[in-house]
Amino acid sequence: MGEDQQKSLLVVYTGDGKGKTTAALGMCVRAIGYKWDICLIQFVKGSWKYGELKGLKALEPYVESHVIGEGFVGIVDDTKDFEVHREAARKGVELAREKIASGKYRLIILDELNVAMDLGLVTREEAESLISAVGERQHMVITGRGAPQWLQERADLVTEMREVKHPYQKGILAQKGIDW
Amino acid sequence: MGEDQQKSLLVVYTGDGKGKTTAALGMCVRAIGYKWDICLIQFVKGSWKYGELKGLKALEPYVESHVIGEGFVGIVDDTKDFEVHREAARKGVELAREKIASGKYRLIILDELNVAMDLGLVTREEAESLISAVGERQHMVITGRGAPQWLQERADLVTEMREVKHPYQKGILAQKGIDW
Repeated sequence: MGEDQQKSLLVVYTGDGKGKTTAALGMCVRAIGYKWDICLIQFVKGSWKYGELKGLKALEPYVESHVIGEGFVGIVDDTKDFEVHREAARKGVELAREKIASGKYRLIILDELNVAMDLGLVTREEAESLISAVGERQHMVITGRGAPQWLQERADLVTEMREVKHPYQKGILAQKGIDW
Repeated sequence: MGEDQQKSLLVVYTGDGKGKTTAALGMCVRAIGYKWDICLIQFVKGSWKYGELKGLKALEPYVESHVIGEGFVGIVDDTKDFEVHREAARKGVELAREKIASGKYRLIILDELNVAMDLGLVTREEAESLISAVGERQHMVITGRGAPQWLQERADLVTEMREVKHPYQKGILAQKGIDW
C-alpha cells in the first residue's frame, strides 16, 4: 500500500492487565524499522522504572522521551498540593502540543494519559485538543487503565488488556525485566 | 530487590486484540535497558512485516531473532503438505531448545507459538519441554491467540488482549506503522 493511503490512527491501550505501556514501547520498535521519529510523553512520573528508562535511552535518537509530572498523586507520601500536580500536567499537555505541531514525529505516545485524566490532572478538553491537532501522517497512541468512553468512541483501535493472571496472585514479587 | 530474589517467569499474551507481539517487542526494550541478551523466535512465518523485521534489526546485537516455518498454513495459496510445515516447526522447537540451553538469553520470546500449537504444528509435549527447560535467570514469553488452558494454568502472568475496536470496522485499510 502506498503512502497516499496513509491515514492517521488513534490507538488506545487500556484495561487492568499488564502490557499497555509495553505494547506502546513495542510500537516504537516497529516505527524504528521505518526510521520514524517518535515522541513519547509519560504523564505519570514514577510509573517508569529503570528498565524502561534505560531501554528508551538505547532507542535514541529515534525515540525522544519525556517524563513529566510531580510523581504519583494521592498516595500516602504525597504531600504536594493538587495544583502542583495539575500545573505539571498542564506543562505536559503544552509539550505534547508543541511536539505534535512540529510535524517531526510520525508516532506520538501519550503514556498513562488515561490515568492523568482519571485523576483530574488533564481535562477532556485538553486531551481532545491534542487528538485534534494530530496531523495526517502521524499516529497517536494513548495508554492507561480506565480510558473514558468518549475516547474509546473516538479511537480507531482500542485494545483492552485484561488481567487473566498476575504473579502477585502466586505471591511472587515484582521481577526485574517484567515489572521494572 | 536483589538478583537473589530473581524468579523465572512465564508470561503469556493471548486474545484476539492487537498488541500481543507488540507487547513482546516492548519487553525487548525493557530488557535492553538491562543489556540482557534476548532471543526471539517467530513461529508463524509471514506474520511479521517490514516494520517488525527492520525494527528488530535495529535492536541488534541485543535481540537475536529467528523466523522459522514455511509460511501460513491452510490458507488458499498454501500448496505445501502439512508434514512440510510440521517439519519446519520441529526445527523451530529444536532451535528454541538450543537457545534456552545455552544460558545466554535472559529473555526468550516464542512468538505465535499458540497459533503453531493450534494448527497442530507444535505439540503440547514439545511446548512443555521448552517451558521446563527455562533456567532460573530466564524469562519466557509466549504469544498468540488461543493460548491453551494448560498453558494459562502454568503461566505466571497471562494478559488477554481483548479487541474492543479495530480500524477495519471503520473500513480503514491496514496502516504502516500499525499493522505492518
